[in-house]
Amino acid sequence: MLLHWSPRSPFVRKVMVFAHETGLADRIVTTRTAVAMTKPHQALMAENPLSKIPTLRLEDGSVLYDSFVICEYLDTLHGGPRLIPAEGPARFVELRRHALATGFLDLLILWRNERDKPHPLPELLDSFAVKAKAALAAVEAEIDDIPMGLAKITLGVLGSYLDFRFADIDWRATCPRFAAFHADFAQRPSMLATPVAEG
Amino acid sequence: MLLHWSPRSPFVRKVMVFAHETGLADRIVTTRTAVAMTKPHQALMAENPLSKIPTLRLEDGSVLYDSFVICEYLDTLHGGPRLIPAEGPARFVELRRHALATGFLDLLILWRNERDKPHPLPELLDSFAVKAKAALAAVEAEIDDIPMGLAKITLGVLGSYLDFRFADIDWRATCPRFAAFHADFAQRPSMLATPVAEG
Repeated sequence: MLLHWSPRSPFVRKVMVFAHETGLADRIVTTRTAVAMTKPHQALMAENPLSKIPTLRLEDGSVLYDSFVICEYLDTLHGGPRLIPAEGPARFVELRRHALATGFLDLLILWRNERDKPHPLPELLDSFAVKAKAALAAVEAEIDDIPMGLAKITLGVLGSYLDFRFADIDWRATCPRFAAFHADFAQRPSMLATPVAEG
Repeated sequence: MLLHWSPRSPFVRKVMVFAHETGLADRIVTTRTAVAMTKPHQALMAENPLSKIPTLRLEDGSVLYDSFVICEYLDTLHGGPRLIPAEGPARFVELRRHALATGFLDLLILWRNERDKPHPLPELLDSFAVKAKAALAAVEAEIDDIPMGLAKITLGVLGSYLDFRFADIDWRATCPRFAAFHADFAQRPSMLATPVAEG
């Protein structure tokens, strides 16, 4: 399988951590595909017209995106415990927590794009800050109860992305439980194998 | 079940069309919750800190979001044919097509937000236009082969959203098959029961 990849994308990292946790990392070949909201990537768009990564090309030539769809697919390829419960209440709690974590990442990426513009819209920056504060509080409120799975992986990647792009937020000051979780999670081999890089 | 709802949100409409198609619409009570990217909705944020709709409150008080998670949940509540295949290759084709349609809607909403700003970023507007053109071509290329399900519903809603907010694109001029699909799909009772409204 070939993964359109970048060391800076938290959504790519989510997929790669998922692959390491499920023993599938060796089956994924990565190709560096740098995307930006203002720069459509023509070659990537032949496979994913939305010009987003991660995008995964399977051995039969078919293509999967987005990061959730790729993780759901990877979860069918291994014999270990499922990282996304297949059914029942546990599945929907997992999916809702994943939607919180991945929606928070979406928000942060839009926030970063906006604040870097020559004319950012003040009320939009304020709105991102208000929602980020609420999302952090929601993560802090339930971080202790989350079993190993897609949501936990995404929250681990989220903490690292906050450090990478939003060090000014000082999220640990208001989220001691999330901070303790992240300090531990960041030491997993899957996280150590997928470092964030500016390059 | 209580759904945070608006007649203008294509993601809400996707959920409501899905509910009508699966015979579940009578079990959903809607409450008008108007959100905007620049205006965090405090009451909604108590249930979804990302301040997005649709957000669904279940009878036990637990909450589900985003629109995909809600549709997956609704698909477990009825006895008819699944609108999201449970497993196998058909599931991943369905999910990838849904990711195309829903990611296209995400792009359109960001595009609309950007173009309405006092100082839109020209290269961002250009980028949205390039990706929208590619996404339309991708939809046109496979619209004839899509079975009834979540992806088809989202594509139906997408066509109506293009008419609602992007009439200037004239998407039918380059997408005759998508136009023919939409002319037919828009007459389904589920679509007629969920009209888009400016109000």
